[in-house]
Amino acid sequence: MLAQLSSRGVSGVFSGYRLQPTCASGLRWLKKLRILCFVLVAGGKMSPKVTTELLKQLRQVMRSPRYVQEPVQAYIVPSGDAHQSEYIAPCDCRRAFISGFDGSAGTAIVTEQHAAMWTDGRYFLQAANQMDNNWTLMKMDQWKRMSKVLRSAGHDLVPIKENLIDTIWTDRPQRPCKPLIVLDLSYTGVSWRDKIVALRSKMAERKVLWFVVTALDEVAWLFNLRGSDVEYNPVFFAYAVIGMNTIRLFIDGDRMMDPAVREHLQLDSTLEPEFKIQVMPYGSILMELQSVGAGLSPKEKVWLSDKASYALTEAIPKAYRYLTPYTPICIAKAVKNALETEGMRRAHIKDAVALCELFNWLEKEVPKGTVTEIIAADKAEEFRSQQKDFVELSFATISSTGPNGAIIHYKPVPETNRTLSVNEIYLLDSGAQYNGQVLAAKHQIRFIFMSSLDSNLRRTLGSLCLKENECFTYVLKGHIAVSAAIFPNGTKGHLLDSFARSALWDCGLDYLHGTGHGVGSFLNVHEGPCGISYKTFADEPLEAGMIVSDEPGYYEDGSFGIRIENVVLVIPAETKYNFKNRGSLTFEPLTLVPIQTKMIDVSLLTQKECNWVNDYHQKCREVIGAELERQGRHEALQWLIRETEPLIRVQ
Amino acid sequence: MLAQLSSRGVSGVFSGYRLQPTCASGLRWLKKLRILCFVLVAGGKMSPKVTTELLKQLRQVMRSPRYVQEPVQAYIVPSGDAHQSEYIAPCDCRRAFISGFDGSAGTAIVTEQHAAMWTDGRYFLQAANQMDNNWTLMKMDQWKRMSKVLRSAGHDLVPIKENLIDTIWTDRPQRPCKPLIVLDLSYTGVSWRDKIVALRSKMAERKVLWFVVTALDEVAWLFNLRGSDVEYNPVFFAYAVIGMNTIRLFIDGDRMMDPAVREHLQLDSTLEPEFKIQVMPYGSILMELQSVGAGLSPKEKVWLSDKASYALTEAIPKAYRYLTPYTPICIAKAVKNALETEGMRRAHIKDAVALCELFNWLEKEVPKGTVTEIIAADKAEEFRSQQKDFVELSFATISSTGPNGAIIHYKPVPETNRTLSVNEIYLLDSGAQYNGQVLAAKHQIRFIFMSSLDSNLRRTLGSLCLKENECFTYVLKGHIAVSAAIFPNGTKGHLLDSFARSALWDCGLDYLHGTGHGVGSFLNVHEGPCGISYKTFADEPLEAGMIVSDEPGYYEDGSFGIRIENVVLVIPAETKYNFKNRGSLTFEPLTLVPIQTKMIDVSLLTQKECNWVNDYHQKCREVIGAELERQGRHEALQWLIRETEPLIRVQ
Repeated sequence: MLAQLSSRGVSGVFSGYRLQPTCASGLRWLKKLRILCFVLVAGGKMSPKVTTELLKQLRQVMRSPRYVQEPVQAYIVPSGDAHQSEYIAPCDCRRAFISGFDGSAGTAIVTEQHAAMWTDGRYFLQAANQMDNNWTLMKMDQWKRMSKVLRSAGHDLVPIKENLIDTIWTDRPQRPCKPLIVLDLSYTGVSWRDKIVALRSKMAERKVLWFVVTALDEVAWLFNLRGSDVEYNPVFFAYAVIGMNTIRLFIDGDRMMDPAVREHLQLDSTLEPEFKIQVMPYGSILMELQSVGAGLSPKEKVWLSDKASYALTEAIPKAYRYLTPYTPICIAKAVKNALETEGMRRAHIKDAVALCELFNWLEKEVPKGTVTEIIAADKAEEFRSQQKDFVELSFATISSTGPNGAIIHYKPVPETNRTLSVNEIYLLDSGAQYNGQVLAAKHQIRFIFMSSLDSNLRRTLGSLCLKENECFTYVLKGHIAVSAAIFPNGTKGHLLDSFARSALWDCGLDYLHGTGHGVGSFLNVHEGPCGISYKTFADEPLEAGMIVSDEPGYYEDGSFGIRIENVVLVIPAETKYNFKNRGSLTFEPLTLVPIQTKMIDVSLLTQKECNWVNDYHQKCREVIGAELERQGRHEALQWLIRETEPLIRVQ
Repeated sequence: MLAQLSSRGVSGVFSGYRLQPTCASGLRWLKKLRILCFVLVAGGKMSPKVTTELLKQLRQVMRSPRYVQEPVQAYIVPSGDAHQSEYIAPCDCRRAFISGFDGSAGTAIVTEQHAAMWTDGRYFLQAANQMDNNWTLMKMDQWKRMSKVLRSAGHDLVPIKENLIDTIWTDRPQRPCKPLIVLDLSYTGVSWRDKIVALRSKMAERKVLWFVVTALDEVAWLFNLRGSDVEYNPVFFAYAVIGMNTIRLFIDGDRMMDPAVREHLQLDSTLEPEFKIQVMPYGSILMELQSVGAGLSPKEKVWLSDKASYALTEAIPKAYRYLTPYTPICIAKAVKNALETEGMRRAHIKDAVALCELFNWLEKEVPKGTVTEIIAADKAEEFRSQQKDFVELSFATISSTGPNGAIIHYKPVPETNRTLSVNEIYLLDSGAQYNGQVLAAKHQIRFIFMSSLDSNLRRTLGSLCLKENECFTYVLKGHIAVSAAIFPNGTKGHLLDSFARSALWDCGLDYLHGTGHGVGSFLNVHEGPCGISYKTFADEPLEAGMIVSDEPGYYEDGSFGIRIENVVLVIPAETKYNFKNRGSLTFEPLTLVPIQTKMIDVSLLTQKECNWVNDYHQKCREVIGAELERQGRHEALQWLIRETEPLIRVQ
């Protein structure tokens, strides 16, 4: 089973694997790494981490009877932590420690002779730059060969109790343990007690006695708490085990001493026993779960995510496990209530103000030739931090210009940092967490392409229309096709993915990533169980209240990158008819930042698409304009008014 | 495993199941029956089959130690034969025999106390009419309850060697054994020897020693033979087992005495041993396969379809089985070569001639009030049979008018037969097999809606535009969206399904069936592994040379039904750019019969859609016009010219 083979251990236990013959499951696991990829070229060079000594030490412990029963032929070091988090704390960055490569996706395998890194095309350049000659970067073709060898040899993955990386990682950082933020009912809409009640009713429906909360954002959501243990994600290290009459929260540090937290969780009140929270040490989850597992009678089941760590899953005997791809918390969390939606709306207004300021500033500064990708990213953060309730960015800002824009998950570093110019597309994919009055994780993106040619002039001249404008317009058509789509209740997001590609496909173009992902409410920027992608068929149907991104793109290697993204809310749609009384849904953009009309080749738009852009810009003007006015940001307001002039389509 | 639980036995062996506690697999199998369904209302009543005595007998054998080791609690009688055929011979219609219900989809379960039939919404009306009071028709809500009971009781399916239905089916028809048709290389393009060579190379690639051909159309395709053992499908009862150096064909009757067949298969020639075909009795497959299974050494594998019957699958010990959802024959068969495509084209020309004659005839006859659905269907067959090389229909003609049109798989019978009128939509979904110069399975559909109001007049009057015209136009927009779609090589058909629905979704409408299916070349009208549907994600990517249907629809219960269908060929598309050198594909309609412009509300079409219709009609006029001319069918030619007048879109 896939989940059991994930290397995410509990507090350092069960975190590595050994290759052993005659079982296909290891291979299946490795297959997950086969992501369609392409090689990208770009500028500067970073200095790689020197790993000779570290690898020597690791190979020693791989043979040492002190740590392993039998010598280990191959040791696998994936990304990720014990909670299946997308973003991880420094103490969990074992793969980066051993290899130097710190991209968000990648798996290292160290054998007696070799050290190899599997990552996808987004990270080929970065991995090659960050790793020294001890490491081989595995790309598509090599992977295929390796896969064949593994298949014919029939390798198996076996768990190793001791985390071998930790044995040689002498300066490993402490697990973070930062103070918690209590979320008031006026922001969450539902108390943690009511969430527990709803969860228990789902448990009763499925006839399970216990539910184990392993994902950090699920723990945070369930208890209406937030933290800052992991960069970009307002979560904290904790597990929870919910019984029909008990609640156990596994969490470390003195943060449970905070009176606000104690009051919020009613730790000192005399409560009905089924709502009394037992606070236990973070590291005791495995033992506690093992004792739960040992005490089960036949037909008593424990509900876990199928992505739970190997150690926790194994703690429950197989016959008693109830595994699902999405937990009831994951599904409930995805449907935002009225207060959460309102919070998201308000966060997007603040964020739009910051971005209007940024783009206004860029228009003045870029022609001077002094703005680099890093400076622009910092400026974006500066404008955001001026907004009330700003907490932090919600992911590393993608700030890229020219060829760097074609690197889908690019993050500027000094070695690759390019200067923005009026002749290149600038791609900004960024977002922030806001707290206080509003709670939201969000991100958004806009383009600034400062050709010295005015677009009207360009259209008049005809032949001067650039490929950048053409592709931008196709991507925009795809963005609109999804955003304006009306579809029946119960439709899964993947059925909408092709709408985003149709205009690109018509001229033989495409993009190699999904069209959208779920967005958390003051939680992770990527969350399940919904999304819009050709890749995933395990997505849950879209429901009113879900929030997803709509972000088609186009990337020309070595030249430019385009992505047009809004965060959108699923809302009921009014339709002329109502087939089988199913009802219909559509999207409402929460992101309200102008789409650069200078980039649009209006002759490629239909009248309907043109109207969509004009209506959208009218709303930007009204909503964001009012806020800019309120904040006294008059220059940015003028910029907004200029950028939201209606498009005129010549028939 | 799903496939092993299918009741398709070998020659009556392993064809029933018993419910037994404590295994979930039976439940999983039953879940397959949960098809989203709706209840339809329609006219006349058929008299049900009296089953009291039959059920009494069946229940006796379910308890009889002569037939079963232990008493059987529930006996399951599905549709289908030992080859997973869609259409089956009368001797295999066990479910119809025991219940009276003869629709193409349905599963009967007989317990000591109850007899229940599961079918989907297409057949609720028919099943209710054909079954007596001994039977309960299981619909959605009842199914849910039953499913809950089964789940909590934890039932299991166990195979029963003896087919209990056969023990009480005294007048069971003989298995058909009709003469074979030999297909010349000039029609198939590839000899059976070359097909065997290609198959063996796939076997070598996957390291399997044996391949078992179980699907009837796969046997027919592999040996370039056709038969007529099953209505509508030019196949014959046979199995084949292909080794790296042996070919065994399991087939009954004296048809192997036919000199043409003997020569074609080179049965009397001195051949290289690896191409020598051993002919064996149809019924000996199980024993032969068991002896193959018994003789295997470790690492020697036998390749079977995962839909192969339980008995054949079990003949090979589990460790030696290599099961795939699509066999290499299924995949090779789907991609038509130049000669097969040419055959399909020529068959469609003949068929279009027949349909032009039919529609011309209907236009004259329907106003007289004498044409019923059955008469129209017969007339369609009569015109088709006038065409050279006509063999038979390729499926039961769906000839329906008014409310009957809303019954998706309707087949007119005397009890439901309606008279066509100028005020109702007439829906015809029909097709034929042609042999000789051309080889093709095909089907097509057109509408005739003879409102006395001229459509131009209707448009002028504005308010008189009917819902039928509106919906017809949405369905047409969906049909065009798929037909004109350009998409990258490697795209799976299910990614195109939403294109067909978008216009309907926009006004809250939809249809509850897939958009398209693969079509065989002088083989089955439905074939894998490609298709266009929201339902199947196991489809193989579309490739140039594949042939599928494009058939969106709209059905208003109790009122009317619309389906606009062409058989289309996947062809390479020319595009302005070529992203990652992947190349693009699109569709070319093979069906060339006018789309009734009288039904179209032109104001709802874009200029591009209007041009598509006009271009399509221009091609119908040229290609079918020439053939009508050649055949001297002047009146039908005049009809064609009238029906292909270009649409004019008023801006």
